[in-house]
Amino acid sequence: MEEKTKAVRPWEVLESRYLSKKPWFTVREEHVRLPNGNELPHYYVFEYPNWINVIAITTEGKYVFERQYRHALGVVSYELCAGVCEAVDGSPLESARRELLEETGYGNGEWEELMVLSPNPGTHTNLTYCYLARNVERVEAPHLEPTEDIAVDLLSLDEVRALLDRNGVIQALHAAPLWKHISMLK
Amino acid sequence: MEEKTKAVRPWEVLESRYLSKKPWFTVREEHVRLPNGNELPHYYVFEYPNWINVIAITTEGKYVFERQYRHALGVVSYELCAGVCEAVDGSPLESARRELLEETGYGNGEWEELMVLSPNPGTHTNLTYCYLARNVERVEAPHLEPTEDIAVDLLSLDEVRALLDRNGVIQALHAAPLWKHISMLK
Repeated sequence: MEEKTKAVRPWEVLESRYLSKKPWFTVREEHVRLPNGNELPHYYVFEYPNWINVIAITTEGKYVFERQYRHALGVVSYELCAGVCEAVDGSPLESARRELLEETGYGNGEWEELMVLSPNPGTHTNLTYCYLARNVERVEAPHLEPTEDIAVDLLSLDEVRALLDRNGVIQALHAAPLWKHISMLK
Repeated sequence: MEEKTKAVRPWEVLESRYLSKKPWFTVREEHVRLPNGNELPHYYVFEYPNWINVIAITTEGKYVFERQYRHALGVVSYELCAGVCEAVDGSPLESARRELLEETGYGNGEWEELMVLSPNPGTHTNLTYCYLARNVERVEAPHLEPTEDIAVDLLSLDEVRALLDRNGVIQALHAAPLWKHISMLK
Protein backbone atom coordinates (compact mmCIF):
# COMPACT_ATOMS: atom_id res chain seq x y z
CA MET A 1 0.00 0.00 0.00
CA GLU A 2 1.33 3.43 -0.89
CA GLU A 3 1.78 6.02 1.79
CA LYS A 4 -1.02 8.49 1.34
CA THR A 5 0.47 11.55 2.95
CA LYS A 6 3.90 12.77 4.01
CA ALA A 7 7.03 10.65 4.35
CA VAL A 8 8.24 9.96 7.89
CA ARG A 9 12.00 9.70 8.34
CA PRO A 10 14.28 8.11 10.97
CA TRP A 11 15.98 9.95 13.81
CA GLU A 12 19.68 10.67 14.05
CA VAL A 13 21.55 9.34 17.10
CA LEU A 14 23.92 11.98 18.49
CA GLU A 15 25.05 10.08 21.60
CA SER A 16 24.40 6.60 22.96
CA ARG A 17 25.50 4.89 26.16
CA TYR A 18 24.45 1.80 28.11
CA LEU A 19 22.96 2.44 31.55
CA SER A 20 22.72 -1.30 32.32
CA LYS A 21 23.58 -4.58 30.58
CA LYS A 22 21.83 -7.30 32.59
CA PRO A 23 19.32 -9.97 31.62
CA TRP A 24 15.85 -8.35 31.51
CA PHE A 25 17.46 -4.95 32.16
CA THR A 26 19.63 -3.83 29.26
CA VAL A 27 19.01 -0.14 28.60
CA ARG A 28 20.59 2.47 26.33
CA GLU A 29 20.17 6.20 26.90
CA GLU A 30 20.33 8.10 23.63
CA HIS A 31 20.44 11.72 22.60
CA VAL A 32 18.55 11.87 19.30
CA ARG A 33 17.65 14.47 16.69
CA LEU A 34 14.36 14.37 14.79
CA PRO A 35 14.11 15.26 11.07
CA ASN A 36 12.44 18.55 12.10
CA GLY A 37 15.61 19.50 14.02
CA ASN A 38 14.14 19.01 17.49
CA GLU A 39 16.22 16.94 19.90
CA LEU A 40 15.38 14.48 22.66
CA PRO A 41 18.37 14.43 25.03
CA HIS A 42 17.18 11.41 27.06
CA TYR A 43 15.55 8.65 25.02
CA TYR A 44 15.55 5.15 26.53
CA VAL A 45 15.87 1.99 24.43
CA PHE A 46 15.32 -1.40 26.09
CA GLU A 47 17.15 -4.35 24.54
CA TYR A 48 15.75 -7.88 24.73
CA PRO A 49 16.27 -11.09 22.79
CA ASN A 50 13.38 -12.06 20.52
CA TRP A 51 10.38 -13.77 22.10
CA ILE A 52 7.92 -16.43 20.90
CA ASN A 53 4.43 -17.60 21.78
CA VAL A 54 2.22 -20.49 20.62
CA ILE A 55 -1.48 -21.12 20.14
CA ALA A 56 -1.31 -24.90 20.61
CA ILE A 57 -4.34 -27.06 19.76
CA THR A 58 -4.36 -30.73 20.78
CA THR A 59 -5.46 -33.67 18.66
CA GLU A 60 -8.73 -33.49 20.68
CA GLY A 61 -9.25 -29.84 19.66
CA LYS A 62 -8.35 -28.37 23.07
CA TYR A 63 -6.33 -25.16 23.41
CA VAL A 64 -3.27 -25.37 25.68
CA PHE A 65 -3.36 -22.35 28.01
CA GLU A 66 -1.18 -21.38 30.96
CA ARG A 67 -1.89 -19.49 34.15
CA GLN A 68 0.98 -17.60 35.77
CA TYR A 69 1.43 -14.92 38.39
CA ARG A 70 2.67 -11.77 36.69
CA HIS A 71 4.44 -9.63 39.20
CA ALA A 72 4.54 -6.12 37.67
CA LEU A 73 0.76 -5.98 37.31
CA GLY A 74 0.23 -8.27 40.33
CA VAL A 75 -2.28 -10.60 38.66
CA VAL A 76 -2.66 -14.29 37.81
CA SER A 77 -3.60 -14.31 34.14
CA TYR A 78 -4.44 -16.70 31.33
CA GLU A 79 -1.71 -16.74 28.74
CA LEU A 80 -0.31 -18.65 25.82
CA CYS A 81 2.86 -20.64 26.21
CA ALA A 82 5.60 -18.07 25.64
CA GLY A 83 9.33 -17.66 26.06
CA VAL A 84 12.64 -16.35 24.92
CA CYS A 85 14.68 -17.26 21.82
CA GLU A 86 17.83 -18.76 23.31
CA ALA A 87 21.21 -18.75 21.58
CA VAL A 88 21.09 -22.56 21.32
CA ASP A 89 17.87 -22.46 19.29
CA GLY A 90 18.35 -22.61 15.53
CA SER A 91 15.28 -20.46 14.81
CA PRO A 92 12.27 -18.85 16.51
CA LEU A 93 10.24 -21.93 15.50
CA GLU A 94 12.71 -24.16 17.36
CA SER A 95 12.45 -21.87 20.39
CA ALA A 96 8.68 -22.17 20.29
CA ARG A 97 8.72 -25.98 20.03
CA ARG A 98 11.22 -26.15 22.91
CA GLU A 99 9.20 -23.81 25.15
CA LEU A 100 5.92 -25.65 24.52
CA LEU A 101 7.56 -28.96 25.42
CA GLU A 102 9.30 -27.57 28.52
CA GLU A 103 6.36 -25.63 29.93
CA THR A 104 3.45 -27.91 29.01
CA GLY A 105 4.85 -31.29 27.91
CA TYR A 106 3.08 -30.98 24.52
CA GLY A 107 4.90 -31.60 21.24
CA ASN A 108 4.65 -32.85 17.66
CA GLY A 109 1.83 -31.45 15.49
CA GLU A 110 1.82 -29.13 12.48
CA TRP A 111 3.24 -25.65 13.01
CA GLU A 112 2.86 -22.39 11.12
CA GLU A 113 3.85 -18.77 11.78
CA LEU A 114 0.70 -16.79 12.52
CA MET A 115 2.17 -13.28 12.85
CA VAL A 116 5.16 -11.27 14.04
CA LEU A 117 4.67 -8.55 16.65
CA SER A 118 6.67 -5.91 18.45
CA PRO A 119 6.10 -5.53 22.21
CA ASN A 120 6.56 -1.80 21.57
CA PRO A 121 8.59 -0.53 18.59
CA GLY A 122 9.28 2.77 20.38
CA THR A 123 10.93 1.25 23.43
CA HIS A 124 11.81 -2.41 22.72
CA THR A 125 14.39 -3.68 20.23
CA ASN A 126 12.95 -7.19 19.91
CA LEU A 127 10.22 -9.02 18.00
CA THR A 128 7.77 -11.72 19.09
CA TYR A 129 7.12 -14.62 16.70
CA CYS A 130 3.63 -16.07 17.15
CA TYR A 131 2.90 -19.63 16.05
CA LEU A 132 -0.17 -21.77 15.54
CA ALA A 133 0.45 -25.46 16.31
CA ARG A 134 -2.28 -27.94 15.40
CA ASN A 135 -2.59 -31.54 16.56
CA VAL A 136 -0.07 -31.34 19.39
CA GLU A 137 0.09 -34.29 21.80
CA ARG A 138 1.21 -34.67 25.38
CA VAL A 139 4.56 -36.41 24.93
CA GLU A 140 6.15 -35.95 28.36
CA ALA A 141 5.83 -34.20 31.71
CA PRO A 142 6.67 -30.46 31.78
CA HIS A 143 10.22 -29.52 32.82
CA LEU A 144 9.79 -26.25 34.68
CA GLU A 145 12.68 -24.11 35.82
CA PRO A 146 12.88 -23.48 39.58
CA THR A 147 11.58 -19.95 39.03
CA GLU A 148 8.60 -21.04 36.89
CA ASP A 149 5.23 -21.67 38.56
CA ILE A 150 2.87 -22.50 35.70
CA ALA A 151 -0.57 -24.15 35.65
CA VAL A 152 -1.56 -25.73 32.33
CA ASP A 153 -5.28 -25.70 31.46
CA LEU A 154 -6.88 -27.25 28.36
CA LEU A 155 -9.75 -25.09 27.07
CA SER A 156 -12.39 -25.82 24.44
CA LEU A 157 -12.82 -23.35 21.58
CA ASP A 158 -16.03 -22.10 23.23
CA GLU A 159 -14.10 -21.51 26.45
CA VAL A 160 -11.39 -19.62 24.55
CA ARG A 161 -14.04 -17.43 22.90
CA ALA A 162 -15.65 -16.74 26.30
CA LEU A 163 -12.24 -15.98 27.84
CA LEU A 164 -11.47 -13.46 25.09
CA ASP A 165 -14.96 -11.91 25.27
CA ARG A 166 -14.55 -11.22 29.00
CA ASN A 167 -11.12 -9.62 28.40
CA GLY A 168 -9.47 -12.60 30.11
CA VAL A 169 -6.24 -12.49 28.09
CA ILE A 170 -4.71 -9.10 28.88
CA GLN A 171 -1.15 -9.65 27.60
CA ALA A 172 -1.26 -7.80 24.26
CA LEU A 173 1.31 -10.11 22.65
CA HIS A 174 -1.08 -13.02 23.29
CA ALA A 175 -4.41 -11.27 22.70
CA ALA A 176 -3.38 -10.24 19.16
CA PRO A 177 -2.66 -13.74 17.76
CA LEU A 178 -5.70 -15.17 19.57
CA TRP A 179 -8.07 -12.58 18.06
CA LYS A 180 -6.43 -13.09 14.65
CA HIS A 181 -6.97 -16.84 15.01
CA ILE A 182 -10.61 -16.34 16.01
CA SER A 183 -11.20 -13.98 13.09
CA MET A 184 -9.82 -16.62 10.70
CA LEU A 185 -12.16 -19.34 12.03
CA LYS A 186 -15.31 -17.47 11.12
CA MET B 1 -14.57 -19.91 34.14
CA GLU B 2 -13.22 -22.13 36.88
CA GLU B 3 -9.54 -22.84 37.06
CA LYS B 4 -9.10 -26.38 35.86
CA THR B 5 -5.86 -27.31 37.53
CA LYS B 6 -3.68 -26.00 40.34
CA ALA B 7 -3.95 -22.59 41.98
CA VAL B 8 -1.21 -20.08 41.19
CA ARG B 9 -0.26 -17.70 43.98
CA PRO B 10 1.47 -14.29 44.14
CA TRP B 11 5.11 -13.71 45.01
CA GLU B 12 6.39 -12.18 48.21
CA VAL B 13 8.52 -9.02 47.92
CA LEU B 14 11.55 -9.23 50.24
CA GLU B 15 13.28 -6.03 49.13
CA SER B 16 12.40 -3.23 46.71
CA ARG B 17 14.34 -0.15 45.58
CA TYR B 18 14.08 2.34 42.74
CA LEU B 19 16.97 2.34 40.27
CA SER B 20 15.54 5.32 38.36
CA LYS B 21 12.51 7.61 38.60
CA LYS B 22 12.37 9.48 35.30
CA PRO B 23 9.66 9.80 32.66
CA TRP B 24 9.79 6.67 30.44
CA PHE B 25 12.46 5.21 32.75
CA THR B 26 11.10 4.44 36.20
CA VAL B 27 12.40 1.07 37.35
CA ARG B 28 12.25 -0.90 40.60
CA GLU B 29 14.63 -3.73 41.38
CA GLU B 30 13.00 -6.30 43.66
CA HIS B 31 14.13 -9.37 45.53
CA VAL B 32 11.14 -11.73 45.44
CA ARG B 33 10.23 -15.17 46.81
CA LEU B 34 7.99 -17.57 44.87
CA PRO B 35 5.37 -19.75 46.61
CA ASN B 36 7.67 -22.77 46.02
CA GLY B 37 10.34 -21.06 48.15
CA ASN B 38 12.66 -20.18 45.27
CA GLU B 39 13.90 -16.62 45.17
CA LEU B 40 14.70 -14.16 42.37
CA PRO B 41 17.19 -11.64 43.78
CA HIS B 42 17.01 -9.22 40.82
CA TYR B 43 13.55 -8.78 39.32
CA TYR B 44 12.92 -5.56 37.36
CA VAL B 45 9.56 -3.78 37.36
CA PHE B 46 8.99 -0.90 34.93
CA GLU B 47 6.47 1.74 36.01
CA TYR B 48 4.47 3.72 33.46
CA PRO B 49 1.24 5.70 33.52
CA ASN B 50 -1.70 4.04 31.76
CA TRP B 51 -1.87 4.32 27.99
CA ILE B 52 -4.76 4.56 25.48
CA ASN B 53 -5.31 3.88 21.81
CA VAL B 54 -8.23 4.44 19.42
CA ILE B 55 -9.67 2.76 16.34
CA ALA B 56 -11.28 5.88 14.87
CA ILE B 57 -13.70 5.58 11.94
CA THR B 58 -14.84 8.72 10.12
CA THR B 59 -18.38 9.56 9.03
CA GLU B 60 -17.24 8.41 5.56
CA GLY B 61 -16.20 5.00 6.92
CA LYS B 62 -12.45 5.65 6.72
CA TYR B 63 -10.06 4.43 9.42
CA VAL B 64 -7.73 7.07 10.91
CA PHE B 65 -4.21 5.61 10.95
CA GLU B 66 -0.86 7.14 11.83
CA ARG B 67 2.66 6.53 10.59
CA GLN B 68 5.54 7.24 12.94
CA TYR B 69 9.22 6.44 13.17
CA ARG B 70 9.75 4.10 16.12
CA HIS B 71 13.29 4.36 17.28
CA ALA B 72 13.93 1.18 19.33
CA LEU B 73 13.00 -1.09 16.41
CA GLY B 74 14.16 1.46 13.83
CA VAL B 75 11.06 1.27 11.62
CA VAL B 76 8.32 3.53 10.31
CA SER B 77 5.11 1.68 11.10
CA TYR B 78 1.36 2.00 10.74
CA GLU B 79 -0.29 2.53 14.10
CA LEU B 80 -3.45 3.63 15.78
CA CYS B 81 -3.61 6.99 17.48
CA ALA B 82 -2.18 6.31 20.93
CA GLY B 83 -0.94 8.17 23.96
CA VAL B 84 -0.53 8.54 27.68
CA CYS B 85 -3.18 9.15 30.34
CA GLU B 86 -2.18 12.55 31.74
CA ALA B 87 -2.96 13.72 35.27
CA VAL B 88 -5.24 16.43 33.84
CA ASP B 89 -7.47 13.86 32.11
CA GLY B 90 -10.56 12.83 34.06
CA SER B 91 -10.57 9.28 32.66
CA PRO B 92 -8.86 7.09 30.05
CA LEU B 93 -11.73 7.95 27.67
CA GLU B 94 -10.94 11.66 28.08
CA SER B 95 -7.26 10.92 27.40
CA ALA B 96 -8.21 9.08 24.22
CA ARG B 97 -10.46 11.89 22.96
CA ARG B 98 -7.72 14.43 23.72
CA GLU B 99 -5.00 12.41 21.96
CA LEU B 100 -7.12 11.79 18.84
CA LEU B 101 -7.85 15.53 18.56
CA GLU B 102 -4.22 16.57 19.19
CA GLU B 103 -2.58 14.03 16.88
CA THR B 104 -5.11 13.86 14.04
CA GLY B 105 -7.58 16.75 14.42
CA TYR B 106 -10.52 14.30 14.52
CA GLY B 107 -13.20 14.53 17.23
CA ASN B 108 -16.88 14.02 18.08
CA GLY B 109 -18.41 10.62 17.22
CA GLU B 110 -19.65 7.74 19.37
CA TRP B 111 -17.07 6.08 21.60
CA GLU B 112 -16.95 2.70 23.32
CA GLU B 113 -14.28 0.75 25.21
CA LEU B 114 -13.19 -2.18 23.04
CA MET B 115 -10.76 -3.93 25.40
CA VAL B 116 -8.14 -3.39 28.10
CA LEU B 117 -4.63 -4.75 27.58
CA SER B 118 -1.36 -5.00 29.44
CA PRO B 119 1.84 -4.19 27.48
CA ASN B 120 3.40 -6.99 29.54
CA PRO B 121 2.02 -7.96 32.96
CA GLY B 122 5.37 -9.43 33.99
CA THR B 123 7.40 -6.26 33.46
CA HIS B 124 5.01 -3.29 33.12
CA THR B 125 2.76 -1.86 35.85
CA ASN B 126 0.35 -0.11 33.48
CA LEU B 127 -2.71 -0.90 31.38
CA THR B 128 -3.74 0.23 27.89
CA TYR B 129 -7.39 1.17 27.32
CA CYS B 130 -8.45 0.56 23.70
CA TYR B 131 -11.40 2.47 22.26
CA LEU B 132 -13.55 2.24 19.17
CA ALA B 133 -14.80 5.66 17.97
CA ARG B 134 -17.36 5.73 15.18
CA ASN B 135 -18.40 8.73 13.07
CA VAL B 136 -15.52 10.98 14.02
CA GLU B 137 -15.09 14.19 12.01
CA ARG B 138 -12.14 16.41 11.24
CA VAL B 139 -12.81 19.35 13.54
CA GLU B 140 -9.44 21.14 13.56
CA ALA B 141 -5.80 20.88 12.49
CA PRO B 142 -3.59 18.52 14.54
CA HIS B 143 -1.57 20.12 17.37
CA LEU B 144 1.65 18.11 17.42
CA GLU B 145 4.25 18.47 20.12
CA PRO B 146 7.73 19.51 18.88
CA THR B 147 8.93 15.93 19.37
CA GLU B 148 6.03 14.36 17.43
CA ASP B 149 6.44 13.65 13.71
CA ILE B 150 3.22 11.95 12.70
CA ALA B 151 1.63 11.33 9.28
CA VAL B 152 -2.13 10.74 9.31
CA ASP B 153 -3.53 8.39 6.64
CA LEU B 154 -7.21 7.54 6.08
CA LEU B 155 -7.65 3.89 5.08
CA SER B 156 -10.69 2.04 3.78
CA LEU B 157 -11.81 -1.13 5.57
CA ASP B 158 -10.38 -3.17 2.69
CA GLU B 159 -7.05 -1.39 3.11
CA VAL B 160 -7.09 -2.07 6.87
CA ARG B 161 -7.75 -5.78 6.21
CA ALA B 162 -4.90 -5.88 3.67
CA LEU B 163 -2.60 -4.05 6.10
CA LEU B 164 -3.35 -6.57 8.85
CA ASP B 165 -3.03 -9.55 6.49
CA ARG B 166 0.47 -8.47 5.46
CA ASN B 167 1.49 -8.05 9.15
CA GLY B 168 1.61 -4.28 8.66
CA VAL B 169 0.61 -3.38 12.23
CA ILE B 170 3.37 -4.82 14.40
CA GLN B 171 2.70 -2.97 17.67
CA ALA B 172 0.93 -5.67 19.71
CA LEU B 173 -1.17 -3.13 21.66
CA HIS B 174 -2.64 -1.98 18.33
CA ALA B 175 -2.83 -5.32 16.50
CA ALA B 176 -4.98 -6.86 19.25
CA PRO B 177 -7.88 -4.35 19.16
CA LEU B 178 -7.73 -4.23 15.33
CA TRP B 179 -8.03 -8.02 15.00
CA LYS B 180 -10.80 -8.03 17.64
CA HIS B 181 -12.62 -5.33 15.65
CA ILE B 182 -12.20 -7.30 12.40
CA SER B 183 -13.46 -10.50 14.07
CA MET B 184 -16.59 -8.64 15.24
CA LEU B 185 -17.37 -7.34 11.73
CA LYS B 186 -17.76 -10.77 10.23
